Amino acid sequence: MTSLNFHPAGRHVLGIPGPSPVPDRLLRAMSYPTIDHRGPEFGVLGHRVLAGLQRIFQTRHPVVVYPASGTGAWEAALTNVLSPGDAVLMYETGHFASLWRKMAERLGLAPEVVALPGICPQTGLPNSWRRGVQPDLIERRLREDGGHQIKAVCVVHNETSTGVTSDIAAVRRAIDAAGHPALLLVDTISGLASADYRHDEWGVDVTVSGSQKGLMLPPGISFNAVSPKALEAARSARLPKAFWAWDEIIEINKTGYWPYTPNTNLLYALVEAVDMLETEGLSAVFARHQRLGAACRAAVLAWGLDVQCADPAVYSPVLTGVVVPQGVDADAVRQLIYERFNLSLGTGLSKLKGRMFRIGHLGECNDLSLLAALSGCEMGLKLAGVRLQGSGVAAAMEVLQHSATCQARYPG
Amino acid sequence: MTSLNFHPAGRHVLGIPGPSPVPDRLLRAMSYPTIDHRGPEFGVLGHRVLAGLQRIFQTRHPVVVYPASGTGAWEAALTNVLSPGDAVLMYETGHFASLWRKMAERLGLAPEVVALPGICPQTGLPNSWRRGVQPDLIERRLREDGGHQIKAVCVVHNETSTGVTSDIAAVRRAIDAAGHPALLLVDTISGLASADYRHDEWGVDVTVSGSQKGLMLPPGISFNAVSPKALEAARSARLPKAFWAWDEIIEINKTGYWPYTPNTNLLYALVEAVDMLETEGLSAVFARHQRLGAACRAAVLAWGLDVQCADPAVYSPVLTGVVVPQGVDADAVRQLIYERFNLSLGTGLSKLKGRMFRIGHLGECNDLSLLAALSGCEMGLKLAGVRLQGSGVAAAMEVLQHSATCQARYPG
Amino acid sequence: MTSLNFHPAGRHVLGIPGPSPVPDRLLRAMSYPTIDHRGPEFGVLGHRVLAGLQRIFQTRHPVVVYPASGTGAWEAALTNVLSPGDAVLMYETGHFASLWRKMAERLGLAPEVVALPGICPQTGLPNSWRRGVQPDLIERRLREDGGHQIKAVCVVHNETSTGVTSDIAAVRRAIDAAGHPALLLVDTISGLASADYRHDEWGVDVTVSGSQKGLMLPPGISFNAVSPKALEAARSARLPKAFWAWDEIIEINKTGYWPYTPNTNLLYALVEAVDMLETEGLSAVFARHQRLGAACRAAVLAWGLDVQCADPAVYSPVLTGVVVPQGVDADAVRQLIYERFNLSLGTGLSKLKGRMFRIGHLGECNDLSLLAALSGCEMGLKLAGVRLQGSGVAAAMEVLQHSATCQARYPG
Amino acid sequence: MTSLNFHPAGRHVLGIPGPSPVPDRLLRAMSYPTIDHRGPEFGVLGHRVLAGLQRIFQTRHPVVVYPASGTGAWEAALTNVLSPGDAVLMYETGHFASLWRKMAERLGLAPEVVALPGICPQTGLPNSWRRGVQPDLIERRLREDGGHQIKAVCVVHNETSTGVTSDIAAVRRAIDAAGHPALLLVDTISGLASADYRHDEWGVDVTVSGSQKGLMLPPGISFNAVSPKALEAARSARLPKAFWAWDEIIEINKTGYWPYTPNTNLLYALVEAVDMLETEGLSAVFARHQRLGAACRAAVLAWGLDVQCADPAVYSPVLTGVVVPQGVDADAVRQLIYERFNLSLGTGLSKLKGRMFRIGHLGECNDLSLLAALSGCEMGLKLAGVRLQGSGVAAAMEVLQHSATCQARYPG
Repeated sequence: MTSLNFHPAGRHVLGIPGPSPVPDRLLRAMSYPTIDHRGPEFGVLGHRVLAGLQRIFQTRHPVVVYPASGTGAWEAALTNVLSPGDAVLMYETGHFASLWRKMAERLGLAPEVVALPGICPQTGLPNSWRRGVQPDLIERRLREDGGHQIKAVCVVHNETSTGVTSDIAAVRRAIDAAGHPALLLVDTISGLASADYRHDEWGVDVTVSGSQKGLMLPPGISFNAVSPKALEAARSARLPKAFWAWDEIIEINKTGYWPYTPNTNLLYALVEAVDMLETEGLSAVFARHQRLGAACRAAVLAWGLDVQCADPAVYSPVLTGVVVPQGVDADAVRQLIYERFNLSLGTGLSKLKGRMFRIGHLGECNDLSLLAALSGCEMGLKLAGVRLQGSGVAAAMEVLQHSATCQARYPG
Repeated sequence: MTSLNFHPAGRHVLGIPGPSPVPDRLLRAMSYPTIDHRGPEFGVLGHRVLAGLQRIFQTRHPVVVYPASGTGAWEAALTNVLSPGDAVLMYETGHFASLWRKMAERLGLAPEVVALPGICPQTGLPNSWRRGVQPDLIERRLREDGGHQIKAVCVVHNETSTGVTSDIAAVRRAIDAAGHPALLLVDTISGLASADYRHDEWGVDVTVSGSQKGLMLPPGISFNAVSPKALEAARSARLPKAFWAWDEIIEINKTGYWPYTPNTNLLYALVEAVDMLETEGLSAVFARHQRLGAACRAAVLAWGLDVQCADPAVYSPVLTGVVVPQGVDADAVRQLIYERFNLSLGTGLSKLKGRMFRIGHLGECNDLSLLAALSGCEMGLKLAGVRLQGSGVAAAMEVLQHSATCQARYPG
Repeated sequence: MTSLNFHPAGRHVLGIPGPSPVPDRLLRAMSYPTIDHRGPEFGVLGHRVLAGLQRIFQTRHPVVVYPASGTGAWEAALTNVLSPGDAVLMYETGHFASLWRKMAERLGLAPEVVALPGICPQTGLPNSWRRGVQPDLIERRLREDGGHQIKAVCVVHNETSTGVTSDIAAVRRAIDAAGHPALLLVDTISGLASADYRHDEWGVDVTVSGSQKGLMLPPGISFNAVSPKALEAARSARLPKAFWAWDEIIEINKTGYWPYTPNTNLLYALVEAVDMLETEGLSAVFARHQRLGAACRAAVLAWGLDVQCADPAVYSPVLTGVVVPQGVDADAVRQLIYERFNLSLGTGLSKLKGRMFRIGHLGECNDLSLLAALSGCEMGLKLAGVRLQGSGVAAAMEVLQHSATCQARYPG
Repeated sequence: MTSLNFHPAGRHVLGIPGPSPVPDRLLRAMSYPTIDHRGPEFGVLGHRVLAGLQRIFQTRHPVVVYPASGTGAWEAALTNVLSPGDAVLMYETGHFASLWRKMAERLGLAPEVVALPGICPQTGLPNSWRRGVQPDLIERRLREDGGHQIKAVCVVHNETSTGVTSDIAAVRRAIDAAGHPALLLVDTISGLASADYRHDEWGVDVTVSGSQKGLMLPPGISFNAVSPKALEAARSARLPKAFWAWDEIIEINKTGYWPYTPNTNLLYALVEAVDMLETEGLSAVFARHQRLGAACRAAVLAWGLDVQCADPAVYSPVLTGVVVPQGVDADAVRQLIYERFNLSLGTGLSKLKGRMFRIGHLGECNDLSLLAALSGCEMGLKLAGVRLQGSGVAAAMEVLQHSATCQARYPG
């Protein structure tokens, strides 16, 4: 009776930095029959899910799975380890870091923002939104906090609004250098499984992530990876929590089950996604995204436009922000590209509205799907009257051609 | 690479009271491509979802959709309208009412339990778990609360652990009769879209529901339908909330969008489910479930067993609890049925563990799928050595045969 | 835009003797991306398909796969080994044997029908349509054919119109006893993978089969399993053929490819189906169908009705024909059952029109799905005013309960 | 248990000239439950299928649907209207025209080949395989056939092996100019629904087509559109036929049913495909393919390579053949592109083996999917050491950018 063809079916290119296109393997997995989540088969599934996630987060400690989207996992990270009024140091790398801070305020915490000051003179964009987390700023602030009022440091690993991937290990070193006991809370919602991420090795206490980016699932699952120190903190944390509470979940997870109804069909897809990632090999997955990011940036530079991320050391392998020339409305360009070339691009968020657009190259992206998206951008920018210095597609092909390795085995 | 055949594929009968079997139409809808939830097509979807839900909840007021499972919607109902330490009157009809109370405690509220006292002498089961909400007990307690310390009355419409569907309109009348301003919060997670439910007409302030029962979706979406009085209460409620906060969601919903990532693929299925329900007609859907419930209870009585619900006025059209004779382990019977007849039944929860099992007849259940489940039960009970008085299947067929109406049009 | 809900989605019980319900595992397999049938991956698929089919047909010789429905494979069997005007001995067991004969005539062959004479006095149905192939009649006729004019003997293994499974090994012994060189051509379109079938051991020269019965696929693939003697005969056969010609297909199949476009997506499902059958074990599959057939016949007898097959030695494990009392219109009963209980049953074909209906218990049928179908029949027969002696469902449950073995492992 | 990941799932670009990529809408349609093809719902489906096909073939006369792949429909066209030994004039435009001729021989007809003589001096390729059907050659030959020995003229509308789309109306005019009664049989297996095709207006007697090209389905359905004159001829044609016989099918089709088992699940997809094509509009579909073909050829010319089709008047909108320089092995290039860029291209067939490859731009192809394929070709050709004059991708973008029109409506 109904039509769900809200979109031009089957031919749309989803070039936003997440949700990323869901591979047909995962769609098939999602269509397995829903089973009794208290029944005997379920435990087998649960154990596979939990073990797989530990490998993806690179941790030997618990990964808590929420049948909820990523914003919920942000809340879980805060409510499990903090108490009303606690001071939290939050580094502002962009829109999502900023939203997390607003949530902290709303929950009754006392967030303190640290960020690189100033405005980029050429583009008029805030410096802090064009660069990664500056560990020295964090270290300095923590050294000042002799009374250890600051209970947690919150940073975003891959800032989806800008395309900046900060150095989390350096943040941990900064905290340690300051000799400060604050917990390290990291959001890698858009980084996980596309960019390298090491929960244990980097000394993260709570890692927040979600399903609809590098894991290639639809939205609806989110995660907290939890260190022993975070678990310890959770014992005395006094923010009210029930749905998000780790204790009961982790306890029951030992049997492969959950205390309340898990979203079984997405767990099927998660098992399949982990299998896809591990068949390719996590390091190959990361290398693929690095290569795609390099090609994408080569395109932007060839066009003569600016990459939103101004520090090459922290370019994101997940997405690239493209700054349009002053006077051009990036959203009008996006609309033109959508209408003429059936391609969705990410909008500039908040302070960046109209000044830039974002190209996702995460999840199952490969050479030709990136080139398809770049082709649409190049034609659309020209049609919108933006003067381009050269062909970004040609530049990206140059990068990809010279770094091409075997993507598929030819059995013949 | 991977196998998701955790269960015997394609032939398993899911006879639990939810998650209910997901119709193939909904599985197909879930496989539509994930779209940009900030893109132009999404608003069309969002408006359809929200309008459809209002018709299902029978309300003209907002229905808030959470990308989370039902337990989360419980928390949302509490945190949006209550403040730390608030007294809440919670009626105990069974395991789920009891869990909701535990959540209220965990969130720092002061729940007060009201319940029918005593133990059923024949079965040894608590009276309160065999009957519906007693409005007079609520009215009496509210009348005592001259200072209006009680801020909310919480009841479960369809108690999934027992198979009792309470009279919500009567609870509203009791509150009004007591002249008490307490909000009425109702959980109809398992009732909605199988049992008649009228948010506005019955004067409910917050209705909590979920996707995986009468709506026939996999778990992962949950709801709060919200009255103007509840919205008013939310303005001054002081429990911390962010993910669950109504205000921002309701504001942005006006445009058809959500403030954070919705689980788009489940929303596709939701639109399709509403279409299925409305094509059949809501009143026809409710009548179908009433008829299936009657047939199921006829089977239980023919077997000579007790229905968990001891009050015919509140038999559930969603599920039927079957009390096994003393000395029989209901879970051993369930296991035998699972292994021999590939049928999943609901376990007895908490106080009912081992004493009963539950048969779901919700969602897309029809005559023949109910009879399939009853056949499995009858054979399994016999194999387990339970003495049956007669054939429950024959009794159920009798009911269904005599009340059969056109289920499918024969074009010929 | 379009609606494909030609049928009441998701809840219809398909109780016809094929096409059988397609398990969701196979539907998922069919949704794998279509690949280049001349590309390197395809050969891997092709080899798996061909090797799997040999195990299912129990043959070491070639199995030719046609991207066509079963009727095409009938034509292929005839045109590959016969020449214009050739005499063919065709045993009439029912409607499908009869249709095959008509095809032989149409192709310019000279079919001679052999059948049991006479009419059953009680039911008025032809004896030949209630019993299996009589090998002695074949042997007698072949002995008379001293000049070996008869080039082939054609029999139907499982006659879908009646529910009779003939003894193919006995037919081979009859041909051998007559010392006659005629080829043995067998149609097991509806028997394969539900009833035991042994191409090599039983000395069959050409076995014809299809996808939509025991293999559980949608229609669209059909087969010829071919003995060395048949291949030899094909060299000199002069009926024109191109699409159906074995030679080119068998030659190219050695590489895993086909000379013309195969229906790739159904081949995916075929691989999956073989995997399902072999995971259960072919002998367990056959035993399951025998058991279901016994239960179904117990139901018919309990109702006081006749089973179409009058010889217990050749009862079909695939389907059961149910003869309705004289004066009852079986198709009116079927329509009532369809409309009231959303259950499709097989119609009486040709000479049996209106006199009987057919219940399929093939493919992925199990205890509870059979009981669902029998329940629908029992209620519908009663509603149609047919006097039943007793409950067929109860009788079937009796059979199934006492022969129940483990269908699913309970890991707990 | 099994893995069907014969191919790198979800990310492979299928750039062959058919089977074309199956849109997810069609995959979903294929997963509808198989229904009783003799049951009451089926007739509704059957009538929709047949009416839709008439609109696609642009005919008011019957379209016969075969549950078989395209090669079968070739055989059907011949066997329904011809008798053993009949002379048939077959124009050789390439490999598929040649295969059809071989089939005619195999079926006992007397095909006479007509073709443009000579070899292209630059490329060494046969002239006839680089140009379309020459109506004057046909006219001349028919004029010589005073005795009307020639019963049919067979031409290929869109020659998939070369990328040439012949002028069918001109062939009809040639036959008429010669005053010859021969039937006109046309293969548009790869042309239908991507290139304009008018069965009635162009005076075609039998049109042969298939499902896996412009109709975007998997292989497995094929067609004969049949003129009244062809139906008349069928009455006296004496080639044996049964499965392919039009008479019985057309008769039973009047009720919406088929005489033997149709492949129901592909019919679901067919209804959906017709809906997609008609929603876009047939003329818009044809214009889209013309535009994609122009862009593809612009790329080939920019590379400095030859298009296989040497006559601009008959360039195919379905596919483009790319001639590689002498000394380059086109299949080695294809293999490299497959392995490095996960892109399948069509091989050079028969006389063209190793000399060219083929790029499909049929079915649901759009601007960005074509550019993805061209990017893969360009990078692969360079990696293979082929000297390219310039960027084909840039040239194609130039064409597409300047001719871009609205592909998707932006509701905002």
